[in-house]
Amino acid sequence: ARRGFPEAVYCAGKTAAQVGAIAAAVAERPDVTTLFSRADDDHAAAVLAALPDAAHDPAARLLAWPPQPPAPTGGLVVVLAAGTSDLPVAREAHLTARYLGRPSELVVDVGVAGLHRVLSKLELLRRARVAVVAAGMDGALPSVVAGLVSAPVIGLPTSVGYGAAFGGVAALLTMLNACAPGVSVVNIDNGYGAGHLAAQIAAPEPSR
Amino acid sequence: ARRGFPEAVYCAGKTAAQVGAIAAAVAERPDVTTLFSRADDDHAAAVLAALPDAAHDPAARLLAWPPQPPAPTGGLVVVLAAGTSDLPVAREAHLTARYLGRPSELVVDVGVAGLHRVLSKLELLRRARVAVVAAGMDGALPSVVAGLVSAPVIGLPTSVGYGAAFGGVAALLTMLNACAPGVSVVNIDNGYGAGHLAAQIAAPEPSR
Amino acid sequence: ARRGFPEAVYCAGKTAAQVGAIAAAVAERPDVTTLFSRADDDHAAAVLAALPDAAHDPAARLLAWPPQPPAPTGGLVVVLAAGTSDLPVAREAHLTARYLGRPSELVVDVGVAGLHRVLSKLELLRRARVAVVAAGMDGALPSVVAGLVSAPVIGLPTSVGYGAAFGGVAALLTMLNACAPGVSVVNIDNGYGAGHLAAQIAAPEPSR
Amino acid sequence: ARRGFPEAVYCAGKTAAQVGAIAAAVAERPDVTTLFSRADDDHAAAVLAALPDAAHDPAARLLAWPPQPPAPTGGLVVVLAAGTSDLPVAREAHLTARYLGRPSELVVDVGVAGLHRVLSKLELLRRARVAVVAAGMDGALPSVVAGLVSAPVIGLPTSVGYGAAFGGVAALLTMLNACAPGVSVVNIDNGYGAGHLAAQIAAPEPSR
Amino acid sequence: ARRGFPEAVYCAGKTAAQVGAIAAAVAERPDVTTLFSRADDDHAAAVLAALPDAAHDPAARLLAWPPQPPAPTGGLVVVLAAGTSDLPVAREAHLTARYLGRPSELVVDVGVAGLHRVLSKLELLRRARVAVVAAGMDGALPSVVAGLVSAPVIGLPTSVGYGAAFGGVAALLTMLNACAPGVSVVNIDNGYGAGHLAAQIAAPEPSR
Amino acid sequence: ARRGFPEAVYCAGKTAAQVGAIAAAVAERPDVTTLFSRADDDHAAAVLAALPDAAHDPAARLLAWPPQPPAPTGGLVVVLAAGTSDLPVAREAHLTARYLGRPSELVVDVGVAGLHRVLSKLELLRRARVAVVAAGMDGALPSVVAGLVSAPVIGLPTSVGYGAAFGGVAALLTMLNACAPGVSVVNIDNGYGAGHLAAQIAAPEPSR
Amino acid sequence: ARRGFPEAVYCAGKTAAQVGAIAAAVAERPDVTTLFSRADDDHAAAVLAALPDAAHDPAARLLAWPPQPPAPTGGLVVVLAAGTSDLPVAREAHLTARYLGRPSELVVDVGVAGLHRVLSKLELLRRARVAVVAAGMDGALPSVVAGLVSAPVIGLPTSVGYGAAFGGVAALLTMLNACAPGVSVVNIDNGYGAGHLAAQIAAPEPSR
Amino acid sequence: ARRGFPEAVYCAGKTAAQVGAIAAAVAERPDVTTLFSRADDDHAAAVLAALPDAAHDPAARLLAWPPQPPAPTGGLVVVLAAGTSDLPVAREAHLTARYLGRPSELVVDVGVAGLHRVLSKLELLRRARVAVVAAGMDGALPSVVAGLVSAPVIGLPTSVGYGAAFGGVAALLTMLNACAPGVSVVNIDNGYGAGHLAAQIAAPEPSR
Ligand SMILES: Nc1ncnc2c1ncn2[C@@H]1O[C@H](COP(=O)(O)O)[C@@H](O)[C@H]1O
Ligand SMILES: Nc1ncnc2c1ncn2[C@@H]1O[C@H](COP(=O)(O)O)[C@@H](O)[C@H]1O
Ligand SMILES: Nc1ncnc2c1ncn2[C@@H]1O[C@H](COP(=O)(O)O)[C@@H](O)[C@H]1O
Ligand SMILES: Nc1ncnc2c1ncn2[C@@H]1O[C@H](COP(=O)(O)O)[C@@H](O)[C@H]1O
Ligand SMILES: [Mg+2]
Ligand SMILES: [Mg+2]
Ligand SMILES: [Mg+2]
Ligand SMILES: [Mg+2]
Ligand SMILES: [Mg+2]
Ligand SMILES: [Mg+2]
Ligand SMILES: [Mg+2]
Ligand SMILES: [Mg+2]
Repeated sequence: ARRGFPEAVYCAGKTAAQVGAIAAAVAERPDVTTLFSRADDDHAAAVLAALPDAAHDPAARLLAWPPQPPAPTGGLVVVLAAGTSDLPVAREAHLTARYLGRPSELVVDVGVAGLHRVLSKLELLRRARVAVVAAGMDGALPSVVAGLVSAPVIGLPTSVGYGAAFGGVAALLTMLNACAPGVSVVNIDNGYGAGHLAAQIAAPEPSR
Repeated sequence: ARRGFPEAVYCAGKTAAQVGAIAAAVAERPDVTTLFSRADDDHAAAVLAALPDAAHDPAARLLAWPPQPPAPTGGLVVVLAAGTSDLPVAREAHLTARYLGRPSELVVDVGVAGLHRVLSKLELLRRARVAVVAAGMDGALPSVVAGLVSAPVIGLPTSVGYGAAFGGVAALLTMLNACAPGVSVVNIDNGYGAGHLAAQIAAPEPSR
Repeated sequence: ARRGFPEAVYCAGKTAAQVGAIAAAVAERPDVTTLFSRADDDHAAAVLAALPDAAHDPAARLLAWPPQPPAPTGGLVVVLAAGTSDLPVAREAHLTARYLGRPSELVVDVGVAGLHRVLSKLELLRRARVAVVAAGMDGALPSVVAGLVSAPVIGLPTSVGYGAAFGGVAALLTMLNACAPGVSVVNIDNGYGAGHLAAQIAAPEPSR
Repeated sequence: ARRGFPEAVYCAGKTAAQVGAIAAAVAERPDVTTLFSRADDDHAAAVLAALPDAAHDPAARLLAWPPQPPAPTGGLVVVLAAGTSDLPVAREAHLTARYLGRPSELVVDVGVAGLHRVLSKLELLRRARVAVVAAGMDGALPSVVAGLVSAPVIGLPTSVGYGAAFGGVAALLTMLNACAPGVSVVNIDNGYGAGHLAAQIAAPEPSR
Repeated sequence: ARRGFPEAVYCAGKTAAQVGAIAAAVAERPDVTTLFSRADDDHAAAVLAALPDAAHDPAARLLAWPPQPPAPTGGLVVVLAAGTSDLPVAREAHLTARYLGRPSELVVDVGVAGLHRVLSKLELLRRARVAVVAAGMDGALPSVVAGLVSAPVIGLPTSVGYGAAFGGVAALLTMLNACAPGVSVVNIDNGYGAGHLAAQIAAPEPSR
Repeated sequence: ARRGFPEAVYCAGKTAAQVGAIAAAVAERPDVTTLFSRADDDHAAAVLAALPDAAHDPAARLLAWPPQPPAPTGGLVVVLAAGTSDLPVAREAHLTARYLGRPSELVVDVGVAGLHRVLSKLELLRRARVAVVAAGMDGALPSVVAGLVSAPVIGLPTSVGYGAAFGGVAALLTMLNACAPGVSVVNIDNGYGAGHLAAQIAAPEPSR
Repeated sequence: ARRGFPEAVYCAGKTAAQVGAIAAAVAERPDVTTLFSRADDDHAAAVLAALPDAAHDPAARLLAWPPQPPAPTGGLVVVLAAGTSDLPVAREAHLTARYLGRPSELVVDVGVAGLHRVLSKLELLRRARVAVVAAGMDGALPSVVAGLVSAPVIGLPTSVGYGAAFGGVAALLTMLNACAPGVSVVNIDNGYGAGHLAAQIAAPEPSR
Repeated sequence: ARRGFPEAVYCAGKTAAQVGAIAAAVAERPDVTTLFSRADDDHAAAVLAALPDAAHDPAARLLAWPPQPPAPTGGLVVVLAAGTSDLPVAREAHLTARYLGRPSELVVDVGVAGLHRVLSKLELLRRARVAVVAAGMDGALPSVVAGLVSAPVIGLPTSVGYGAAFGGVAALLTMLNACAPGVSVVNIDNGYGAGHLAAQIAAPEPSR
């Protein structure tokens, strides 16, 4: 674990056999939390063969071992998903923040086309130490949220959409140009990165 | 005037002398409204030399002759500008709609970073037959407006912004991907086109 | 149904099971028209299992329930497809307009390479309250149509083409730069959005 | 003169002094036609100092010496400009074809927004051995022309337009995707290249 | 057949059943040559079911009926392929020119990395009325060929390459910027278009 | 002041007269800090005419009134500039953080081409609650810094560079793809946004 | 073998049968080393059928025959791979350099997120006549390496990454903008090209 | 001087006063060669005020002090410029190589449109230890040169061209896709980088 955080194994570029070998090595170090991100079904089977009690969230393509996240410390991480299609990426952010030790809440289907939905979550949003806002298509939700709260907002563009959504580029550009201050952006579909960063921002003072 | 609409002279690609010659010819036809769009100071001087009583809006870079817009008929055109920097383009749309014969209202500084401002205009917005929504930077306002009203929304991206705003491209993409139905888009900074289209949409039944 | 329009379920980002669950819930609300857009074969089977009498247009990837569109009111929506490859997207627009309650006509194979074909439809085009013009490749048809009629034109770029068509981007740019006023544009292949917008523009006065 | 064609000096990347020195050398070779393209006022003055009787078309930014084009041979080159803003580039193509020895006709303001204008030129177009079609903004004119004639069409995109015209890229893409066969394309604003190619296509048989 | 040329059916956007129906109709018109382009195995089977003696070139994905090309008239079309991977597209151009009635020669593997190979074809190239030059990757061959011959050159960029070849965009841009005059360009992989245009350029005088 | 933060006036889109009028109104509210960002010489003169004792940093194009930043509270903001050309943008971030009430240190000329320079600042970096890292050209510094510290890193791409730097796009992409977790990104040259966000991240607990 | 180097057969654009035929011809020329690059399983099987003792590195998708690389001469080629996902491309470069006759060392997992790893390889790096540095995502490693050594650095961008990595474009741009002098770049994933170039740079004096 | 090479001061991002101050400091260190690159007239005047005997090449925008380049050692660097417009960038490469201590030859106007010109330089090219090939527009020259020689080729794309040259991007892509092995590429107009790298490649053995 680099600098006090869990280790993450990025499965996408590895064979199931390679990931299985890493999982076998991980079994020797129960003191450290290890995350397996971007794990497809084969990767997951290989991890579970070596670490049968690993936690597995197939939608988020994430496994964790030991399976139990640490007791939460630090500020609250609120993760918002504009639509249900943004949920897998939002779950990856939410679970990453949890396994890095933060309390985290996940809220879905609060796109800007129905403002009352996001406005109904204001009380929760105002308790956040940091908000992660996942959105595809027009990517407009982080602009709206940053105008409502004084906590920092992490824009998490998703590849949801078609045509001129350009696989998340439209949402990415929207978020980089957010007209409210307090928004920064991670790579498209990078739920792991957004959750990790949120956990760093919301870290309790002594832990740094 | 093509198909019952005023004639428009696009000045940007013409010398002041060429525009002056057109203005002189226009003086022979007071029965038709003529607009001079994208007129810089030199173009405007040349028009005013030939048509001294022409109406001139320097911010919108628009001149019109005869100067008086027709009595308004048809539905209401509401033009919104997200920020003050979007005002020149929004004014071009607003005045074009007026000179094409529609009633039109212009509202400024209703960006999504301060939702209460756009929400305070709901009553006006719901009276609109069509809304033109000008925004640069993140271009998020049309998505929000389309979620609030059932009238068609014309997204008018502006070149306001810097860096990854790419001269209006970010706003254009946002609007093309608006997550609420009912939004269509015109070219960046094309206030004339947005106002013209709005006038067509809001046209009184017999006039078509 | 938001703001008096049918509800639409965008199937592309959902599993067949999720769509089936929504369809089961929809069965409780026969008073509202529900559209299922971007439905592949599995999605369609799931909808039809829950709503056996739903209308299904496989080419348009659209299902509707109750199956019968409302009696048409408001102005005429004319949908043009430049070529037969543009037909699925054009049908999606046409059917959406119909299920939102408008009279609609669909005309195919009127590309600009054979001008006589579009000119032969002038009488129909001039009866339109709004025209939806679907085209891929060079996307030139909306420019030509807007020069022929005074109704608003919705440019609907399609991803038909190859190479420098860039999946519809070339057609999109063409339409954004249409040299005739009165054209606005929706996202590439967004037949649902074009049909929805057309229905809003052609809405009968009291319905807004 | 390479391969029997006039020599061309591309001034844009050269100082006036460099161009003047070339012009002085050219004065020794009255047997060959030399063109100076993309010549600004300073370039032109330098050429005229060395070759006082050179022909100079400031709009086309072209000079030629000896000033008299050769007697026309070969097929007819017809050059069309969609709008008046496309005229400088179209003139450059027209004059280049003339100085390479072809008969050439130039027609202006025949954009697709007013189809009757291009249709009124059908007789001329059908006499062409090759057509050069200059257009900016939507760049739709070559598609229409290629559908009307059986001669080859050279699409000449111009940088006329703003916003999503991207300095001629939109027109370039339109032309590359022309839905009628028989269209090829040269670089944006490359009137010289279009005229040169047209002269090669329309060359009389023995001249090759 | 439009304007005296064969009719072409673009199969890529059609089902095998649709193509088969067209082929059945074509059987009624043996007086006209019909081409089926971009035909995959299923399309080809459908055509051959209706027109068993159709000519079929699987590499070029082209079928023709009646199978015999017309006796060649007009000037020589020379088609060059830079590498063997460019051959399918080059064959499509070559066969199209043949079925439009021109004499045509096809030369392969003459890329600029081995200049002696293209230089060894100079005699043939100088007999060409027009050259079609297919190349992917750096797309440099048309520049070299245009410097060697006075005939017009049609650049035919192919999608051969990887990484920053961007599916043929690099080759397309190279050709648009060819430093020798006399080059124009068609869409990426558009062998049909290049062959059609070449046949128009090389057409015998009376046939136009 | 929105949500407890200073008000900022973005001068770039305004005339000097407009900015002067705002400055005059600001003079009535000495209880709130107001920042004037992206102020050129004329803007600055207009502000100083109304608020003669305003603080002015010409390099950062920033003015502040009242001139004295608040006593620092919360965690340390460390701002790094890869090279001296990145200094104006880095100063804008540094001063913004100071006027929002944070302690802030600015370090220059620590680019990755001389790793010893950034390594010599490790002690300071490890005291940071958040780091802002400004870099143009290859934009590689945030990746390196994020690998060295556990604080969150705000990547601030600058438009420094030429050619394939694309006005900061290369640096922006590098930062979005940082291979160390804990990096998020703001718009190109957006020093104000980076400093504002840093102040939010480093805010003392009760102040939120 | 052109100019004294092995011949390379680029398999990606060929059928297994075509590659097999080439391999059969190669069997006649054991005096020359032949490489088969970008060989998938089918290509490899075809080569091995004709050349059963060919060396095959499936990860690098490379085969060589005769299987034994020449005795190394010239300077040392050091190949670095930032992460394990960059290994296939790095191996292609490493093996190519070996088969062209250079001594070569391959080092993996030295990304800039863990500087100590690359710093621990300084002694090896300083012995290099040339370094090939393969990296995806942020592509930052060549900048760091070029700052540490005086040998030339070949940046080898890989398509590793997602979202705004754009298939290697982000890494490519980073490397083109490397802030340390001494870096040049090859195409994305072009391990063959990088290894070939490295062998040319490190060639022993007499061999050129 | 980092790692035994001259120090370079990149003037483009600095004021004349800043550059003058650096030049004054440089005067204390006559033992090291210092280059001032991208120096405009004001920068040059400031350098010459402090270092009156500095060598100044205005076309290359380069100054050097002490003015005398070192006695040449190592292999020959041959710099080719495709056209005269590429000369400033080519000179910058040539002079940089000279001031880093290599023998260097500069050859101009050898573009691929006139192959005989580059072929006439074969003897010189074959003596090169490394070739720098500067070209704009189609950027095809490095492909041709790499096919003729076995030395490594550094592609130096220039911003010469217009329209779809995209400020050197077309040439950059061409060179990245060079179909002959042995080509790598530096940033657009980066003559300094190309010359520096060439000097490293051609360095005499002991100097590394
Ligand atoms: N989903 C992800 N996206 C981006 N980076 C990741 C992801 N998961 C893990 N990583 C990073 O990749 C590193 C592991 O890479 P590897 O050693 O190839 O498994 C970790 O240290 C993380 O910083
Ligand atoms: N600001 C504008 N943007 C786009 N099109 C315009 C604008 N102003 C006028 N036009 C169109 O340009 C045509 C006039 O072009 P022109 O004949 O060149 O003056 C009018 O018919 C309008 O359709
Ligand atoms: N084909 C479509 N393209 C774009 N938006 C759509 C489409 N179909 C439905 N929608 C929108 O998506 C919303 C439904 O999204 P969801 O709740 O994810 O099914 C609807 O309210 C529509 O506004
Ligand atoms: N992986 C590769 N990437 C790029 N070029 C290659 C590769 N492998 C071989 N080549 C080049 O392609 C040429 C062979 O192409 P071909 O004749 O089509 O097999 C060789 O001369 C090499 O220069
Ligand atoms: Mg906020
Ligand atoms: Mg709405
Ligand atoms: Mg119209
Ligand atoms: Mg035609
Ligand atoms: Mg030629
Ligand atoms: Mg870190
Ligand atoms: Mg170095
Ligand atoms: Mg070579």
